[in-house]
Amino acid sequence: MTDQRIESDSLGEVRVPASAYWGAQTQRSLENFAFAPAERMPLGIVHALALVKRAAARVNRRHGLDPALADAIEEAARDVAAGVLDAQFPLAIWQTGSGTQTNMNVNEVIAGRANEALGAGRGGKHPVHPNDHVNRGQSSNDSFPTALHIAAVVALNRDLIPALDRLTGALSRCREAWGDVVKIGRTHLQDATPLTLGQEFSAYVQQLRDGYERLRDAERFVLRLAQGGTAVGTGLNAPPNFAADMAAELAALTGHPFVPAPNPFEALASQDALVQLSATLATLAVALGKIANDIRLLGSGPRSGLGELVLPANEPGSSIMPGKVNPTQCEMLTMVAAQVIGNHQAVTVGGLQGHLELNVFKPLIGAAVLRSIDLLACGMDGFARHCVDGLEPDRARIAELVGRSLMLVTALAPEIGYDNAARIAKHAHAHGLTLREAGLALGLVDGATFDRIVRPENMV
Amino acid sequence: MTDQRIESDSLGEVRVPASAYWGAQTQRSLENFAFAPAERMPLGIVHALALVKRAAARVNRRHGLDPALADAIEEAARDVAAGVLDAQFPLAIWQTGSGTQTNMNVNEVIAGRANEALGAGRGGKHPVHPNDHVNRGQSSNDSFPTALHIAAVVALNRDLIPALDRLTGALSRCREAWGDVVKIGRTHLQDATPLTLGQEFSAYVQQLRDGYERLRDAERFVLRLAQGGTAVGTGLNAPPNFAADMAAELAALTGHPFVPAPNPFEALASQDALVQLSATLATLAVALGKIANDIRLLGSGPRSGLGELVLPANEPGSSIMPGKVNPTQCEMLTMVAAQVIGNHQAVTVGGLQGHLELNVFKPLIGAAVLRSIDLLACGMDGFARHCVDGLEPDRARIAELVGRSLMLVTALAPEIGYDNAARIAKHAHAHGLTLREAGLALGLVDGATFDRIVRPENMV
Amino acid sequence: MTDQRIESDSLGEVRVPASAYWGAQTQRSLENFAFAPAERMPLGIVHALALVKRAAARVNRRHGLDPALADAIEEAARDVAAGVLDAQFPLAIWQTGSGTQTNMNVNEVIAGRANEALGAGRGGKHPVHPNDHVNRGQSSNDSFPTALHIAAVVALNRDLIPALDRLTGALSRCREAWGDVVKIGRTHLQDATPLTLGQEFSAYVQQLRDGYERLRDAERFVLRLAQGGTAVGTGLNAPPNFAADMAAELAALTGHPFVPAPNPFEALASQDALVQLSATLATLAVALGKIANDIRLLGSGPRSGLGELVLPANEPGSSIMPGKVNPTQCEMLTMVAAQVIGNHQAVTVGGLQGHLELNVFKPLIGAAVLRSIDLLACGMDGFARHCVDGLEPDRARIAELVGRSLMLVTALAPEIGYDNAARIAKHAHAHGLTLREAGLALGLVDGATFDRIVRPENMV
Amino acid sequence: MTDQRIESDSLGEVRVPASAYWGAQTQRSLENFAFAPAERMPLGIVHALALVKRAAARVNRRHGLDPALADAIEEAARDVAAGVLDAQFPLAIWQTGSGTQTNMNVNEVIAGRANEALGAGRGGKHPVHPNDHVNRGQSSNDSFPTALHIAAVVALNRDLIPALDRLTGALSRCREAWGDVVKIGRTHLQDATPLTLGQEFSAYVQQLRDGYERLRDAERFVLRLAQGGTAVGTGLNAPPNFAADMAAELAALTGHPFVPAPNPFEALASQDALVQLSATLATLAVALGKIANDIRLLGSGPRSGLGELVLPANEPGSSIMPGKVNPTQCEMLTMVAAQVIGNHQAVTVGGLQGHLELNVFKPLIGAAVLRSIDLLACGMDGFARHCVDGLEPDRARIAELVGRSLMLVTALAPEIGYDNAARIAKHAHAHGLTLREAGLALGLVDGATFDRIVRPENMV
Repeated sequence: MTDQRIESDSLGEVRVPASAYWGAQTQRSLENFAFAPAERMPLGIVHALALVKRAAARVNRRHGLDPALADAIEEAARDVAAGVLDAQFPLAIWQTGSGTQTNMNVNEVIAGRANEALGAGRGGKHPVHPNDHVNRGQSSNDSFPTALHIAAVVALNRDLIPALDRLTGALSRCREAWGDVVKIGRTHLQDATPLTLGQEFSAYVQQLRDGYERLRDAERFVLRLAQGGTAVGTGLNAPPNFAADMAAELAALTGHPFVPAPNPFEALASQDALVQLSATLATLAVALGKIANDIRLLGSGPRSGLGELVLPANEPGSSIMPGKVNPTQCEMLTMVAAQVIGNHQAVTVGGLQGHLELNVFKPLIGAAVLRSIDLLACGMDGFARHCVDGLEPDRARIAELVGRSLMLVTALAPEIGYDNAARIAKHAHAHGLTLREAGLALGLVDGATFDRIVRPENMV
Repeated sequence: MTDQRIESDSLGEVRVPASAYWGAQTQRSLENFAFAPAERMPLGIVHALALVKRAAARVNRRHGLDPALADAIEEAARDVAAGVLDAQFPLAIWQTGSGTQTNMNVNEVIAGRANEALGAGRGGKHPVHPNDHVNRGQSSNDSFPTALHIAAVVALNRDLIPALDRLTGALSRCREAWGDVVKIGRTHLQDATPLTLGQEFSAYVQQLRDGYERLRDAERFVLRLAQGGTAVGTGLNAPPNFAADMAAELAALTGHPFVPAPNPFEALASQDALVQLSATLATLAVALGKIANDIRLLGSGPRSGLGELVLPANEPGSSIMPGKVNPTQCEMLTMVAAQVIGNHQAVTVGGLQGHLELNVFKPLIGAAVLRSIDLLACGMDGFARHCVDGLEPDRARIAELVGRSLMLVTALAPEIGYDNAARIAKHAHAHGLTLREAGLALGLVDGATFDRIVRPENMV
Repeated sequence: MTDQRIESDSLGEVRVPASAYWGAQTQRSLENFAFAPAERMPLGIVHALALVKRAAARVNRRHGLDPALADAIEEAARDVAAGVLDAQFPLAIWQTGSGTQTNMNVNEVIAGRANEALGAGRGGKHPVHPNDHVNRGQSSNDSFPTALHIAAVVALNRDLIPALDRLTGALSRCREAWGDVVKIGRTHLQDATPLTLGQEFSAYVQQLRDGYERLRDAERFVLRLAQGGTAVGTGLNAPPNFAADMAAELAALTGHPFVPAPNPFEALASQDALVQLSATLATLAVALGKIANDIRLLGSGPRSGLGELVLPANEPGSSIMPGKVNPTQCEMLTMVAAQVIGNHQAVTVGGLQGHLELNVFKPLIGAAVLRSIDLLACGMDGFARHCVDGLEPDRARIAELVGRSLMLVTALAPEIGYDNAARIAKHAHAHGLTLREAGLALGLVDGATFDRIVRPENMV
Repeated sequence: MTDQRIESDSLGEVRVPASAYWGAQTQRSLENFAFAPAERMPLGIVHALALVKRAAARVNRRHGLDPALADAIEEAARDVAAGVLDAQFPLAIWQTGSGTQTNMNVNEVIAGRANEALGAGRGGKHPVHPNDHVNRGQSSNDSFPTALHIAAVVALNRDLIPALDRLTGALSRCREAWGDVVKIGRTHLQDATPLTLGQEFSAYVQQLRDGYERLRDAERFVLRLAQGGTAVGTGLNAPPNFAADMAAELAALTGHPFVPAPNPFEALASQDALVQLSATLATLAVALGKIANDIRLLGSGPRSGLGELVLPANEPGSSIMPGKVNPTQCEMLTMVAAQVIGNHQAVTVGGLQGHLELNVFKPLIGAAVLRSIDLLACGMDGFARHCVDGLEPDRARIAELVGRSLMLVTALAPEIGYDNAARIAKHAHAHGLTLREAGLALGLVDGATFDRIVRPENMV
């Protein structure tokens, strides 16, 4: 076996690997919740907890925490937040519902690292104690949801919003470039009156811009931090003004305008702010699913589909059908959308089942929200780069399809009445004629009138 | 106001309309849960509860229930089960989670009707008492879930299975009729190797047949009845052998092979059998959504879509675009599928939250499952009648599309190797050539070989 | 059979009941989508469509619509919007995905009514034509989503917000009345440090206030109307400035600040605004589920549960267990929450599957959102009235429970250290002692210190 | 940079790491779908694909594949299936919806490994070609769903069923051990008639047994393999009898009774079998959520909750509240249940959106189903070991609670009538009396009768 040392907690002694910074509680959790490594608590949450510990060391120093200990805690917390010690956080998402074990993992590693720095050897509780010093003024019940909010806000701004901007920009360029490409519209997947390809893409841009605004709406509630509520919301054992001081430190550390939750009881007992963020991510997923599905439809073919768009050929499409190029980025994005919708269901079920002073589905909720953010961010970025940026309209095909459509007859309705316009369309359809031929054959319109009125480019 | 009379329960006196058969507890529920009429408890559940009361009267007579009262109860219960008194069941789905109020509504109306028949005036508790006689040997906690199971099995067999058979038959006829229609296959919505339209429809038939088998799997657990468990599963206050006797009577009354639940505690505390039935309905909805969406795609056009199927024109398609005929039955069925999927989510959330001896989401679960059954039954029947029965292939269009496909090159791969086959397809695609032209131009295949191998009708 | 007359549309003639105002297209839909009456399109959507028609008559008059016809349309539309003709709208939710058939139902009934008023007999197309006059400048594709938005905003403000205010007020009164009731806190359903009952209820108030803000966020997007886009978003066949004029008229008619959608293509092709509203309703449902579940837990008993709250006895609780009073309003509200969560899933699935220029899950989405609003509105109002308003704390029981808790030891941790505090708690637990007894027995604290520090009323 | 070599595919040349066995298509996917390592395609799917390749080498040898190549492929495939080369499969779940890229990753690595073994250097296409030899007779479209089915069946039988058996056994031991522990029943979370703790746990055992049967029902359809359908279901380019031969080889390799899908078109175009498996896993999750939640409720306390069960103290419960032990295993399992429910939603959305000949949500569906299986398996095993195995009833507390219950009055109803029984209960409740005291005070029952009838041990 590897070298081990003894750590202890209120239940007794535990052996931990000698190389580990963590202590007894982390070790117990590893054994009690033996999930596969893929189920590890997201590092974004660990890093955010480390920010909490760093901020707490600063605030606690003002309330009497020994400056030498505070410095050592700050330094160790900075390392954790920077990702230097990621291997020290092996616990699973699936643990206690308050995230206590991950909170203790962070407390123990920071203490263990600080103790080492202070010359007392790796790990242990002296001179820096995981609870009495690192966790001072805090409870898992307020620190962990605080970390979830921080991690979500950070990932949203660092990963999701830029990717959303990237995709919005790519689609906007399509909208602008193709403002003159008149094409057949389709409603009910049936031929309809024309519009431009630029107009079609303008809808996607609008969907994403609205998605952005909705995310900002949802973020407003996530910027509120539970910190300061301690165990049940009363703030017992926290120093005066701790909630406000911590929010200010965390805002300074991250650059995001965090504030104390207006009601600390709510901030522990419910996770509504993350439920709504998750819901808003799912609405964005709905929009992305629609957009990707449309591009897949418009790019269907090459010869037996709609064929209006040419998608970039990023890879051979099939192991058996040579020459085929598939809408793989659309498939990726629609799958991502499905998973985000599923994650929201998990978050909903978790958010629903809080009991009294504490919602105990916090790790599930945090992990699912972060995964949704990551999936959407990476998915949108890849979709923009590898699909939208390379889209090209097949102008000849588009012109062919709009030219033979029966739906241009709509333009005649105000001139000759709805029922007559319908008769022309039906006659053309039944006999394989153009609209012009049918109109003249039925004597319902003359050629000059037809040519004046039925002009796709005037109908967009 | 209307005429009223006084009824009473353990909380005191209540005024009820003189014309009503119901008593105090029904009246209280009406006032405490003032939902709109559209939110009424499904009559299928009321009718099933009446079957329970009728069966109980029979069994209780053997255990000493006055035969005159038993007869009167049986007769009144038969009327309720037959739908003669539907207006007497005004309570909302959204009431107590055990369905007690609807159970009492049925008890009170049967007692009130029996008392009238026995000459004691409408309503009241004498000589037939809603609890002591109609509800004898029962609790809401076992009667209500029993009624949910009965209602589900009845609706499944009376409405859903016949509609599923109807649709399976309609699709089977397509499969058989179109076995010779060779068409382009599409994977990733991209052109692929050919198959017949009959083969394409054979997949739908298989999906529905599997759906049927899965429903029968799920039904097995729904045939188990909670009756006999009374309040918490122990059967307290029920006569000996009540569970088995009741199941036998209910099987005789309905023609379905009901049996007593193997564990009455589980039958009250969980609704897993209905959760799984709901899940299975949702899987069927997934299949139907796929089928309807495919038919909508194949029928897209008339001139700028795939256009392989001609859908029946059941109605004018648009208020502004004359001549347009929309896939309205497909739209109906995909919307129905979405609602059934949503209902399953509601059922899941309800099934999850049982507490100890009783799941108290029973009315929600029962109403959602019955609505899903009704929607699927009516949706499949309408879709069969108004869409599938009237489908016609556009053979010319189908032949045109398969003829110009590049994917027939796949047949060459075993002969000339994958990479060469791919080169031909790419060359044809790049230069707008047929495969034959491209193969000869590249010198990778001779004409005779090409004509021998690349034959769509041999590729299906 | 009843008397009939002949109506016609572009597909030919149809018999309709002589008493009906509707025409051919409504009649066809009735036959093609033969769902049960319970599946009728919500009247809120019909009424909103009538508002659209009324507004359109006003705007179209300025663009040349014969004033006599415009007046007759306006009058008939006002009657429909007022609910006078509700029986004339028998169509099912489950129809074409654009809502065209309900749009035509409204067009036909208004024309049929106007024609009758103008002396031409009931129904028909002269002098008022359902398409050429009532639907003038509109398409189902813009009118129907406009009606969905109007109906949602109306129901939100008329029904939901007042009920939310009602419940927020009821919970606020609890918060204020019980600010002095010190009770045991519970986290993980385990005893924790104390708080006041008022603080516990303050979390619920915060949840609802946040829910209110989120609804207002979501409503912002629903106030944007698709009207003016006509068939595909280009506004073909609508008079100039139609979108803005219609929004202004609809704002005037309803008192809500409707505006034209910034991008009409998006407003037809996606229903993201309603998806997000539905999501926000589901987040509110999550909050309500939590609140109702808490009150159910706190009211559990009477003798073998937590028993901290006494719930009003609205009805006898059980058909077999006399004297039992159940948390029926909590059960109603948690079932409602489950259905709203399920409805959101249906809406999500529908929102995801728009194709190109038109989302064709509109009736599903509209009906599900309206049902969710109605359920939450009625559910919250009833819960406030019949549960929260009647809640009483059992002060003796609350005092008993907080007094015997071990978790008050937390207050000692800053004084004697975490590990020592834990030893006292464990000792008391193991030997059935009070904390004071255990602390003294272990010599870890003296009596005076204990009494000074361990005071629940100072811990809240 | 690291050493690289050149690989190529139909799109041209690509640099790959010299150490990699994979080729051009894998490398392209890595760059086109740059998700985080946590989003890697589950290895269970990779291993199952390797089994497919191994079986195919055996079958193809009979149809002319050079035995030397077949041997090399078999050996390399065996290594992949055994997990020796796991690092060679870096692709993300989020790729093309057919799983083609992972199929090619497996093809390329097996070819690259076989070529190395045959002396041709690592990687490349000679003498073993990834498509012409490793993928011979197959398409991604049939191989990938075959692998999903194999992976699911393997994980189900290797991981899930044993864990389910383990938990069923643990709960069965509780049921048997506590058959004599008479306790208060609770319905609506309100005191109800008594049952034994063994009976309460018997419901859990039944739920799990039913869950087992349902999994076997669902597995029946997953045992059907798509292999042999090749690109669209027609089996083009596969040797005769390939489907049956492959199923037989795969059955022999795995020990599971795989059979060819009855309809290969359905097996490619739909994933209904996995949708239903996922649904059934979600139903099991519902059951587990109920069980874990019950145990959490029964273990609530230690002094201010129900306190009927003592849960094992696996870890210190709180970072601030010493001595507290939380129901962490229950929290883990209820969170797992929520994620499985969410995953099912993702699977549903993916299953719904197949298009024509191919469902392109396969990686999503496969990964979500496998994650659900893993989570449930690990969750149930841990819950059994670390919670159920260590449960102890607090017999004194249980006796105290049942003794003071009012609900024992139910036993009097058959003797003195429902209304009188109710009066006694209400009187006892109002005046804080025992039932016996209340009954005597009201003169509704004499002491001897009371003592004869009201005996909890006779009511179970």
